[in-house]
Amino acid sequence: MAETATNRVFLLAERPDGVPDADTFELVERDVPELSDGDVLVRTLYLSVDPYMRGRMRDRESYADPWALDEPLEGGVVGEVVESNHAAFERGDAVVGNLQWAEYAAAAGEDLRPVDPDLAPLSTHLGVLGMPGRTAYFGLLRVGDPEPGDTVVVSAASGAVGSVVGQLARIAGCRVVGFAGSDEKATYLTDELGFDAAINYETADDYAAALDDVAPGGVDVYFDNVGGPITDAVFTRLNEGARVAVCGQISLYNEESVPTGPRKLGTLIQTRARVEGFLVGDFASDFETATRRLGEWVDAGEIRYRETIAEGLESAPDAFLALFEGDKIGKQLVKVADRAAE
Amino acid sequence: MAETATNRVFLLAERPDGVPDADTFELVERDVPELSDGDVLVRTLYLSVDPYMRGRMRDRESYADPWALDEPLEGGVVGEVVESNHAAFERGDAVVGNLQWAEYAAAAGEDLRPVDPDLAPLSTHLGVLGMPGRTAYFGLLRVGDPEPGDTVVVSAASGAVGSVVGQLARIAGCRVVGFAGSDEKATYLTDELGFDAAINYETADDYAAALDDVAPGGVDVYFDNVGGPITDAVFTRLNEGARVAVCGQISLYNEESVPTGPRKLGTLIQTRARVEGFLVGDFASDFETATRRLGEWVDAGEIRYRETIAEGLESAPDAFLALFEGDKIGKQLVKVADRAAE
Repeated sequence: MAETATNRVFLLAERPDGVPDADTFELVERDVPELSDGDVLVRTLYLSVDPYMRGRMRDRESYADPWALDEPLEGGVVGEVVESNHAAFERGDAVVGNLQWAEYAAAAGEDLRPVDPDLAPLSTHLGVLGMPGRTAYFGLLRVGDPEPGDTVVVSAASGAVGSVVGQLARIAGCRVVGFAGSDEKATYLTDELGFDAAINYETADDYAAALDDVAPGGVDVYFDNVGGPITDAVFTRLNEGARVAVCGQISLYNEESVPTGPRKLGTLIQTRARVEGFLVGDFASDFETATRRLGEWVDAGEIRYRETIAEGLESAPDAFLALFEGDKIGKQLVKVADRAAE
Repeated sequence: MAETATNRVFLLAERPDGVPDADTFELVERDVPELSDGDVLVRTLYLSVDPYMRGRMRDRESYADPWALDEPLEGGVVGEVVESNHAAFERGDAVVGNLQWAEYAAAAGEDLRPVDPDLAPLSTHLGVLGMPGRTAYFGLLRVGDPEPGDTVVVSAASGAVGSVVGQLARIAGCRVVGFAGSDEKATYLTDELGFDAAINYETADDYAAALDDVAPGGVDVYFDNVGGPITDAVFTRLNEGARVAVCGQISLYNEESVPTGPRKLGTLIQTRARVEGFLVGDFASDFETATRRLGEWVDAGEIRYRETIAEGLESAPDAFLALFEGDKIGKQLVKVADRAAE
């Protein structure tokens, strides 16, 4: 390693009780990892922070393995290859993978995917062309199953996933309503992303009445990122045969005991509605198609995106915590380094 | 009308607040109805009381129209034709239809279905070969979508619907667990109906732990008749890709405000489970097949049934209220009259 002798890495310092804070994270110096045969050393350029990571802070079996105490945190990274013991990669290649919250990380070549730095900004591989974009794609199109003319409602609509959901629904010929947390975001949805209507959940006092105003025909598809009172209101406005795609429940992720709310199952009988959870990984065999199509829509200006980029690895905890404050628009990223001059 | 000059009819005397009671119903004398062209006069033999009728007592739009105040109650009836102005029916024919809680009712011939009194006891057309049997058939097979080897859990398992669900699941090669409200019912499920296990929800203090004992591999299909704490426990034990068919929520029907409980949607993400409500009427085009198959299984002794029969029209309110006490086994019926000697 010519460039550096040290590496900075975030560890899980303690498992949070309720809302995580600065004490949840510890930034330590570690050696730059040694490579085994078949490994690749990656310098982090962008690190993704995502709501699902709250679940990995718990010591509990779930779809993503719990993070271990005093061990490095992991997440989506776009980086560049510094050193390669794998035939498919060479120094300078841009790659994406699940790596550490660190300046440098080693990975088996099989766990990295090359990306073309000339095709789209590298950061998009963690957002609109990455896991969040694909989550929107499969959750809406395969689970929500929208038909032209349907009314589609999405919560956390100005976020990395929700903003793509709404635009895909518009492309699919649907009427689109988004819930978002400020007037600025609501305007962004309607004026920049082509949503038919947006509801500011911070200022609306009756979500169901707000829905009646903008979606008087009821709701055919609900893409749920948040859970809680917004979801409660949408359930009261589901049409016959409605589909609910459960993607996330961010409003509940920091609850330590099981939160309570209105019982909803009775609603499903009268409406014959279907509620289904999903994980994007279940659609892995079709990732390539989804990424290609999303890229084409981005190129054509049919899908727009924003990114909120925090500077420096040390800003990662704050960037993660900001997800739960909901005051940012678009994909939340941490920029860790610039691409090396070539 | 030679046989009688009077007719007794139950009216909805008031809309109950919470649990209905004797004041909800009023038994009055009315004339035997006059027939218009195309009508048929039916003498009630058996009247069905069903949990969904609680919903019809509310002044609120739902899948079954609200009953009007001071007007006759309606429900499934097996009867015999007394007089016919319709070419398809003649005096003495046995028929089934949605008629009044009355000794005599008139109906358009189109709204009645003839039944063969030699094929099965007439009462079964309100139970195992009627709406409850078909509800079990379509809810389990079309919504629950069981595969051989699946573990199927059914609540209210000794009732008219649940008992058929469990036996159909057994026929479909599944392992079957039923929740029921007494040791007698639990024994009935395992010893007479071939369930693999039964949980007495009145004596079990931890439903989830009870499930772990008898279904250590988790739950693949849950057929929900009751809602509330049993359903809460089953949700914590759903397997990946599980299906929940929401048929009824009898534990909640007498609640006047929206009941609260643990929020469940987060569970669906990790499990990718699907929760879907249904109404048996949506499957009307396949009713004939379902009824024929159910009849064959009953004939072959593969599906057994019990009926709890109250005597006399005046016992109908008590028979209805008993549904919510859950102390009866099988289909709850009211016997209003014997078939006329022929």
